[in-house]
Amino acid sequence: MDAISVIRTKRDRGELSPEQIDWVIDAYTRGEVADEQMSALAMAILLNGMNRTEIARWTAAMIASGERMNFDALSRPTTDKHSTGGVGDKITLPLAPLVAACGAAVPQLSGRGLGHTGGTLDKLESIPGWRAHLSGAEMLNVLDTTGAVICAAGDGLAPADKKLYALRDVTGTVEAIPLIASSIMSKKIAEGTGALVLDVKVGSGAFMKTIEDARELASTMVALGSDSGVRTVALLTDMATPLGLTAGNALEVRESVEVLAGGGPKDVIDLTLALAREMLDAAGLKDADPEKALADGSAMDVWRRMISAQGGDPDAALPVAREQHVVTAQASGVLTRLDAYDIGVAAWRLGAGRARKEDPVQAGAGIEMHAKPGDTVTEGQRLLTLHTDTPEKFEYALKALPGSFDIAPAGTEFTPTPVVRERIA
Amino acid sequence: MDAISVIRTKRDRGELSPEQIDWVIDAYTRGEVADEQMSALAMAILLNGMNRTEIARWTAAMIASGERMNFDALSRPTTDKHSTGGVGDKITLPLAPLVAACGAAVPQLSGRGLGHTGGTLDKLESIPGWRAHLSGAEMLNVLDTTGAVICAAGDGLAPADKKLYALRDVTGTVEAIPLIASSIMSKKIAEGTGALVLDVKVGSGAFMKTIEDARELASTMVALGSDSGVRTVALLTDMATPLGLTAGNALEVRESVEVLAGGGPKDVIDLTLALAREMLDAAGLKDADPEKALADGSAMDVWRRMISAQGGDPDAALPVAREQHVVTAQASGVLTRLDAYDIGVAAWRLGAGRARKEDPVQAGAGIEMHAKPGDTVTEGQRLLTLHTDTPEKFEYALKALPGSFDIAPAGTEFTPTPVVRERIA
Repeated sequence: MDAISVIRTKRDRGELSPEQIDWVIDAYTRGEVADEQMSALAMAILLNGMNRTEIARWTAAMIASGERMNFDALSRPTTDKHSTGGVGDKITLPLAPLVAACGAAVPQLSGRGLGHTGGTLDKLESIPGWRAHLSGAEMLNVLDTTGAVICAAGDGLAPADKKLYALRDVTGTVEAIPLIASSIMSKKIAEGTGALVLDVKVGSGAFMKTIEDARELASTMVALGSDSGVRTVALLTDMATPLGLTAGNALEVRESVEVLAGGGPKDVIDLTLALAREMLDAAGLKDADPEKALADGSAMDVWRRMISAQGGDPDAALPVAREQHVVTAQASGVLTRLDAYDIGVAAWRLGAGRARKEDPVQAGAGIEMHAKPGDTVTEGQRLLTLHTDTPEKFEYALKALPGSFDIAPAGTEFTPTPVVRERIA
Repeated sequence: MDAISVIRTKRDRGELSPEQIDWVIDAYTRGEVADEQMSALAMAILLNGMNRTEIARWTAAMIASGERMNFDALSRPTTDKHSTGGVGDKITLPLAPLVAACGAAVPQLSGRGLGHTGGTLDKLESIPGWRAHLSGAEMLNVLDTTGAVICAAGDGLAPADKKLYALRDVTGTVEAIPLIASSIMSKKIAEGTGALVLDVKVGSGAFMKTIEDARELASTMVALGSDSGVRTVALLTDMATPLGLTAGNALEVRESVEVLAGGGPKDVIDLTLALAREMLDAAGLKDADPEKALADGSAMDVWRRMISAQGGDPDAALPVAREQHVVTAQASGVLTRLDAYDIGVAAWRLGAGRARKEDPVQAGAGIEMHAKPGDTVTEGQRLLTLHTDTPEKFEYALKALPGSFDIAPAGTEFTPTPVVRERIA
């Protein structure tokens, strides 16, 4: 077996054999297959595709490159959620404690933001004292005592995926559905959850720009999960518009706490409840009532215990950026579009995101939105407030925004896109 | 400018801009673009292609990565030949002195074998004392005093191509027509020859297996040469069958000397003369008579002077392999096929070629053929003699041969493929 023959098979539109896949993933993890060979293979996969059999084997090989976790000792059924990434997507923050409050265990291994999309760990790290990195024993303990844990994946989980993901990031091979699907699912299956709900974002602010691509990714992942014994469901949800009224780290924590306190923007509440119902259903808890757990404060109780258990102070004041800049409406009328990608890029440039993996993020940076599509706006009113600690970033961030919203004459009919567009199971 | 955006352009079937091409070649030569990025780009080029404008710019950028040679000071017109590589392709050895004997100057920068194809420098190095590496001044001196020089290209010539070629070799991206064409032509244009004849091989033993691919490669290279002021012609020649009766290093030198002495196999003589006429024509020497120069010994005289000028002894005994193994005919009849690829692979495995660039070759290893397609054979007669210094290689080499020839019943009609199949100018 050698790397060139594996590359040639896929280059020439052939099907990779199970032996080829097992060998190339293992040899790449061990460093025997070089980065330049794997990136050529990744490009061939991006352009020529992999079939379901190949994707399943590729995923299994990535799982086999590391350890697998096991939550069988827990008294509750485990259920998890994964979002493909969006702008203002803070849903994991209210969702994990809410689902735990309804009786499931939520082992949420999360990631950091890259590019214009935010990351759950970056958001939570804006809470003073909170730690993302837990040992396996600490993770199990937080999960067992509070019902939910949100933390970084350990280095032992799917190391092949870690290496391949970093390579794809610098070689223009991120946008390959077989590689995205196997990357996500290898981590989730290795994590050992019993049920999984996938939030596949679609629209300008998502990696999948079209509903067709989102469907293909979702059905690929659902098949992978189901074949591995994980009860898996996917919702295709809108990411043409940012979720909620904030994009940024501390800004999104604040909004999440509002939702847990019974308030918050409608789209965030709706999506949190829709995903909670799917997660509870998949976990076999058909009678759970997440709406009630949100209203009666039990979800908030789990949130406070979960944050405290990871060293965070749920009552501490959240960081606020040192400088603000307000963008106002240039006309009166109906806001018909607020572009998720543009808002994501502007928030990123303000310091909420990172250009390279090793960069720090600003906890306070980001964007507050004062209107959402469907709202009536008046000329001169505040549309956006930009936040940063480094005001020299305003100019570059503002360059992302000129085409980011449309205001139509008053009375124009506006049909909102539903947050949940499709369900695939 | 960054590598990812260049990769994405080609990945998404876009046209690379002149600025992108200039930047990526320069940055790769300097090490700013990493190997894993260039290999992803090479795979995207292999699968999505480049148009003529892109290929011309890519070639120019590779030329600009190094120095250019200049033969204007010579009193004779320069003319060169390049073969895309085949099995038993020793044509450069008799051809360069023959064309020099007819009045042209032949600055032949040659390469080494890789894979199943042989390399001119490896063949000549089986002559005791002969040196492939000359300084620029030595090269000019040999060329000026003998009319021909066959040597290795200096490190200063198209360094971007050197680096990219080594990368393509290990990443399954050799077989990309735009990259093959620009690799060959960047070296030939930088070399400064006034005229160039391309011998584009087609058939099992060639990189181009089909006449369509060979045509595309030939016409791409002819256009690149002509646009750069090099009078360029291409012959598409047969490589379904090995050339001549030998494949190997010293074995092929011996056969070349036979041709220069007025003997040798007909296909080798025919192709040598056809290429010589094209080279002389392209150099403006329309009245030259290569047939006469071969017959009257003047080509042999140039050969002897050229070999001596590079430290070789034209009268020295050539190395002979220590062990031989004979393959006999299993039936009587007409030999209708002798597969170039299989013979090439077997010769390679016997030690005539190398698996990795840094491996040595055996001077005496290779294969003698005792019959060629069209010949009548008798059961039990010798078909092939395998030569190697390391008899443990016989078994692996023989594994390449079971399907390598067909013997049809006596009287079966056989139509030979002409050596020269098409001409593209």
